Amino acid sequence: MFEAAELGHAVPDAVFKPREAKLREDLLRAQYDLLADGSFPCIIVIGGVDGAGKGETVNLLNAWMDPRHIHTHAFGDASDEERERPRMWRYWRALPPKGRIGILFGAWHTQPILDRVMGGADDAALRAAMDGIVAFERMLADEGALILKFWFHLSKPAQRHRLKALEADPRTRWRVAETDWERFKLYDRFRRISAEALERTSTGVAPWHVVEGADANYRSLMVGEALLAALRRRLGGERPAVTPAAALPPPPADGRTVLSGLDYGRTLGRKHYQRALEEAQGRLNMLTRHKRFRAHSVIAVFEGMDAAGKGSAIRRVTGALDARCYRVIPVAAPTEEERGQPYLWRFWRHLPRRGRVTIFDRSWYGRVLVERVEGFCAPADWMRAYHEINAFEAELASAGGIVAKFWLNVTPEEQLRRFREREQTPFKTFKITAEDWRNRDKWDAYQQAACDMIDRTSTAAAPWTLVPADDKPAARIQILEALCERIERAL
Amino acid sequence: MFEAAELGHAVPDAVFKPREAKLREDLLRAQYDLLADGSFPCIIVIGGVDGAGKGETVNLLNAWMDPRHIHTHAFGDASDEERERPRMWRYWRALPPKGRIGILFGAWHTQPILDRVMGGADDAALRAAMDGIVAFERMLADEGALILKFWFHLSKPAQRHRLKALEADPRTRWRVAETDWERFKLYDRFRRISAEALERTSTGVAPWHVVEGADANYRSLMVGEALLAALRRRLGGERPAVTPAAALPPPPADGRTVLSGLDYGRTLGRKHYQRALEEAQGRLNMLTRHKRFRAHSVIAVFEGMDAAGKGSAIRRVTGALDARCYRVIPVAAPTEEERGQPYLWRFWRHLPRRGRVTIFDRSWYGRVLVERVEGFCAPADWMRAYHEINAFEAELASAGGIVAKFWLNVTPEEQLRRFREREQTPFKTFKITAEDWRNRDKWDAYQQAACDMIDRTSTAAAPWTLVPADDKPAARIQILEALCERIERAL
Repeated sequence: MFEAAELGHAVPDAVFKPREAKLREDLLRAQYDLLADGSFPCIIVIGGVDGAGKGETVNLLNAWMDPRHIHTHAFGDASDEERERPRMWRYWRALPPKGRIGILFGAWHTQPILDRVMGGADDAALRAAMDGIVAFERMLADEGALILKFWFHLSKPAQRHRLKALEADPRTRWRVAETDWERFKLYDRFRRISAEALERTSTGVAPWHVVEGADANYRSLMVGEALLAALRRRLGGERPAVTPAAALPPPPADGRTVLSGLDYGRTLGRKHYQRALEEAQGRLNMLTRHKRFRAHSVIAVFEGMDAAGKGSAIRRVTGALDARCYRVIPVAAPTEEERGQPYLWRFWRHLPRRGRVTIFDRSWYGRVLVERVEGFCAPADWMRAYHEINAFEAELASAGGIVAKFWLNVTPEEQLRRFREREQTPFKTFKITAEDWRNRDKWDAYQQAACDMIDRTSTAAAPWTLVPADDKPAARIQILEALCERIERAL
Repeated sequence: MFEAAELGHAVPDAVFKPREAKLREDLLRAQYDLLADGSFPCIIVIGGVDGAGKGETVNLLNAWMDPRHIHTHAFGDASDEERERPRMWRYWRALPPKGRIGILFGAWHTQPILDRVMGGADDAALRAAMDGIVAFERMLADEGALILKFWFHLSKPAQRHRLKALEADPRTRWRVAETDWERFKLYDRFRRISAEALERTSTGVAPWHVVEGADANYRSLMVGEALLAALRRRLGGERPAVTPAAALPPPPADGRTVLSGLDYGRTLGRKHYQRALEEAQGRLNMLTRHKRFRAHSVIAVFEGMDAAGKGSAIRRVTGALDARCYRVIPVAAPTEEERGQPYLWRFWRHLPRRGRVTIFDRSWYGRVLVERVEGFCAPADWMRAYHEINAFEAELASAGGIVAKFWLNVTPEEQLRRFREREQTPFKTFKITAEDWRNRDKWDAYQQAACDMIDRTSTAAAPWTLVPADDKPAARIQILEALCERIERAL
């Protein structure tokens, strides 16, 4: 991995100056082309060893191009708002929107490598983290991002020489601390472990560029010219090949599905309902006040057929909670800022801190439901979504999130009855639109999409609860009890 | 202030139940009307004494209405991201967008009152904080927000009775801690100080509603019916009267202004410039690495006539900085999410943490420049902006922000020369549009707007630096040196 970056590469000033002048002009032009194009972001990840010119290169990129359209983020210690959310949350916050360049300094690779070098993490942990990163970068690329990853390297003699040179000069002596030499002792270990990390995360859509950092002219040209070439290639129309989606298996030949088998005839009498509701709400309330709940959060997802009773079920859940600890996020069309980002971005931004509950009224599953059925995205896009969503939810779970997902299903007859009732009740007419009737015409397609979704995203970390919802009281009690059980198991 | 809320108000269930049923339905309808109207947000501020039913009422409002369109925020201890920014930043983050209801629990009034009751703050500090709040709420109201403030009160005997009752019941005994009785000892002091705070902040556009909290039926009806009445009045077309803007004084009769008197003929030779540039950039770089800079932040604002050289001046500033510590925010048309908020919101969201620099390329001054000249907002709106901007910048300064503002002015002849040059240089044509030529036709109006802006917003905390910019090298050095001086004075 690093052999070619220990050859002592160098470019003399006489060669550098004219190439730099040309490069700078071309880069600025490419940056403006990217801005005008506006269809994808350019994400530059910077990593590597201390003193190999990472910071200087980032400064140079900002000097060469127009810094107004570059988002530079350096990741030091996580803030408390970041620590209370999944590990990747801080990186999602920092992603550049389409048309912009984002420079991420010490991004997602850094911490897992340091944990392995200095902390107690083992090889398996490092590999798991790297595999997560591969999936994350694959998703970014599939969402259209152009990704460049630069690793700045120094050979061991070059590193030693650098520290000695800094110490020798009275003006720079202060830059070398005791800890720098301590870290130098770990050089071989760091080199070995980062090589492994780089190998695992160097993929076709997001390869690492290892750059020898000793000579400023050399490393600057290498980074600048790689960036220019990548921008030009992409702006010239080349997109990474999208693997065509494999077809999903056909619906079962006998018509039986997980949804057709639910008990739609069950009912719960008014008196039983009232008692069960009070009991379940009390139980839920106590659970969210539990001492151990402070280390967790709840992410509840409500999906279902139109008029299946999502809204009223959500109100029975919020009725049990303290308004200060929950948020309900109704998911409709994305805003302008959200459209400039990968599709999961608008859900990441609403993730709860520890001790809090976020309820999504419709969710990221829109991708594999309405977007699939209505053709709002390409088959390859919704096909990859199952896997991305599973990774997303696994990440929530591993950060203490309790993910509870409810699919509310009604029979076509009951839906028709509710639609008619809504049309006839003056106060409910706003809840029924022409779109609802159009969706109803696509009943089978929606049921098929729901079955595929349940098949592919009911995981151990985040199982679906299937709710036959023809009888609203019974549905609500089922939901409340399932939610309580999920929380109890986690505490 | 509190006398009427110590009368032992109570509403029997028989009266409450039918009124509640009606109120709930009406409130839900009003909430949907607000959503459909979408032209203003409804901000509900909740404060008051412990145990007076604040939390219960917030829960009830969420149960009565559709919780999906209510943004409830409870403000406990500030997070570290919040502590590193001006005090009001966390409240700006929590403002509901137009069409939505925001419930702010323990909002901006709370901390100043507690600081006075328990901490070391004196009367003057409390009054200053309350005056700031009056200005802030005035601004929110002028921006269209409907503001309701509820203060929940309990008389001293009622408060004592409540604590004793909680202690007597084994199921609730845990809710009374030692500290509750300690706080009870401060009851009189808290009552006196909050009365003063409420008096000072009860204004025509944002009056306090003091609600006796002992009886749940009574307080619920009082809050719900006040909210319903306010929503209906506003949705029915009533807007708070806007005080008509007084006319600004006319331009000086002799034509002499702060801008006409600048030295546009000054020049700086290339050699002098290079030396001065290196020196000033080095000085700026060292200042931002200074130990004491970690307690400050820089907010630099660049405004000026078209083609005055803002962009290239900014690049000379960023060229001196580490890319990891600054952000440049180019200000163009607001996004959809920004349009749903008061006009200063989109600048608050970009405020730097401590130790960081944010450079605004155009800024909140657009309100009194382009928006004034082009008639994008009413005279009353830009007239009030001077005062609001001064309050905003004073707040930045009092939180350790170093506010540096630059107005770059060119002569009409020099602007013409640069426009023509841009048209003739292939690589610069993107920088010149029909709009630039149109703006040029309004030269006098822009100069007048700039002079008024400088007059009214050059404050001790945030003075303007006026930069004659016909000679770019001289302008850049002046800017860098002025910025260094501002930082030096602060450190």
